[in-house]
Amino acid sequence: MLALTVVGLTIASVSPAAEAPSPWRTLDPADTIYMELTAGRVIIELAPQFAPNHVANIKALVRAKYFDQQRINRVQDNFVTQWGDPKFAGPLGEAKRALPGEFTRPAAGLPFTLLPDSDTYAPETGFVAGFPAARDPATGQAWAVHCYGMVGVGRGDSTDSGSGAELYAVNGHAPRNLDRNITLVGRVVQGMELLSSLPRGKGAGGFYENPSQHTVIKMMRVAADVPEAERTPLEALRTDSPEFAKHVEARRNRREEWYKVPAGKIEVCNVPLPIRKKSGLETRD
Amino acid sequence: MLALTVVGLTIASVSPAAEAPSPWRTLDPADTIYMELTAGRVIIELAPQFAPNHVANIKALVRAKYFDQQRINRVQDNFVTQWGDPKFAGPLGEAKRALPGEFTRPAAGLPFTLLPDSDTYAPETGFVAGFPAARDPATGQAWAVHCYGMVGVGRGDSTDSGSGAELYAVNGHAPRNLDRNITLVGRVVQGMELLSSLPRGKGAGGFYENPSQHTVIKMMRVAADVPEAERTPLEALRTDSPEFAKHVEARRNRREEWYKVPAGKIEVCNVPLPIRKKSGLETRD
Repeated sequence: MLALTVVGLTIASVSPAAEAPSPWRTLDPADTIYMELTAGRVIIELAPQFAPNHVANIKALVRAKYFDQQRINRVQDNFVTQWGDPKFAGPLGEAKRALPGEFTRPAAGLPFTLLPDSDTYAPETGFVAGFPAARDPATGQAWAVHCYGMVGVGRGDSTDSGSGAELYAVNGHAPRNLDRNITLVGRVVQGMELLSSLPRGKGAGGFYENPSQHTVIKMMRVAADVPEAERTPLEALRTDSPEFAKHVEARRNRREEWYKVPAGKIEVCNVPLPIRKKSGLETRD
Repeated sequence: MLALTVVGLTIASVSPAAEAPSPWRTLDPADTIYMELTAGRVIIELAPQFAPNHVANIKALVRAKYFDQQRINRVQDNFVTQWGDPKFAGPLGEAKRALPGEFTRPAAGLPFTLLPDSDTYAPETGFVAGFPAARDPATGQAWAVHCYGMVGVGRGDSTDSGSGAELYAVNGHAPRNLDRNITLVGRVVQGMELLSSLPRGKGAGGFYENPSQHTVIKMMRVAADVPEAERTPLEALRTDSPEFAKHVEARRNRREEWYKVPAGKIEVCNVPLPIRKKSGLETRD
């Protein structure tokens, strides 16, 4: 690795003989979930960096086929799309019925790509292995943040009441007030529009008033358990790569002719996280 | 007015004899637009404080019935829902074909309710007559900001190419990079879910590939031109009221049992702007 990335600034120093590592990484099928709807496949990348116990529990639930034929039963406008049943309506397999919350974790040892701009909610924001995240030097804690498309674990009033049997995806403006109050387990990397374009529920909190309005989940599967020919091969731009730093800078200061006043800044939830279909050709962009 | 509101803090000093003014205001029918869809009514409050020329032009277009039978032709996930035709497919009436952009305006003379917390994009944020806004003491300028549900005027690369014949509403995380680059003319105060739950267009930029996918706009009307019995009487909480300051504080520090770590801060686009059906009873909450 001969490229040095400083926040918002890329200093490349690659000798002609050196081969640059690809800035793209293949999503790990062991930490990728497919939610199959009639309308298509929703793909979720799990975040064991932040919630190892919940990620393991969700994979156990998925492998027990807990979510198969479960429903999307809540769509609250500009908040969350939610599915599953916290009352354990399906088979649990090896999964636990409740887990202590994984709201924050030690920042020490966690590679963190810092954004240069201030944030209303956190002392520092940036990215950890593709996930939008925050960090507080005063407490030494880090946490994933509630941006559009992030997936979390429903819980009751008690912090240890969540299990992963009920999940939500953020479908509107980032509800950052939820940060550090609930366990985030990943993000939707493909198919978010299938969750965000559902009719809103008219009951309290966006719950549907009639079960006939629910969207049926045909099944959820760990990608590693799906035959390779049926997988969706995706790559994500590494958030610790010089190419990602260039991407962030291009979004901080939009240079397209249309823009007249580049913002000069960017908030963590406004950085699109590049995902692409894996091609046979290695990209050396 | 015997109540003094300081940022995040309310000092009430009302003598028993004094009658407190209502913190609720009735939306002005002259600056309220109804967009009638088969699915229901979308209600937009216009912001002449920020874009007097565009607001006047849009009202002229509406009164010429320009938008009647026009289409919602673009829904880009986590960005905008857009309608109308910049090529002037309908009758223009008194409306102009192009107007200079109204991207910012002098802050002087504009009552501004300041939020206490920092913002990534602007030196100061807060509210102006119900609209989320920003202000820069260094330039003396103020502007409306791109929060969820805000409505703006499509334009080409030239800053004076917009007219109001093509409008958009923000349907996802606040695209604050658009601030000061495009004219905002108001916000959706009811029915935003009818625009946010539409299927996403699969063409570039979220445009639908086939006109058969468009949503037809039955008509757009200025509320003042609609018979009173057919209007939707709405009230908004005054953003310069002590009650609104309390509302902001309750959102900065959520005290519900569910919350374990109140954020202690709030970003301008995370403050819900209270709207209610007008009742016969005056509220003295």
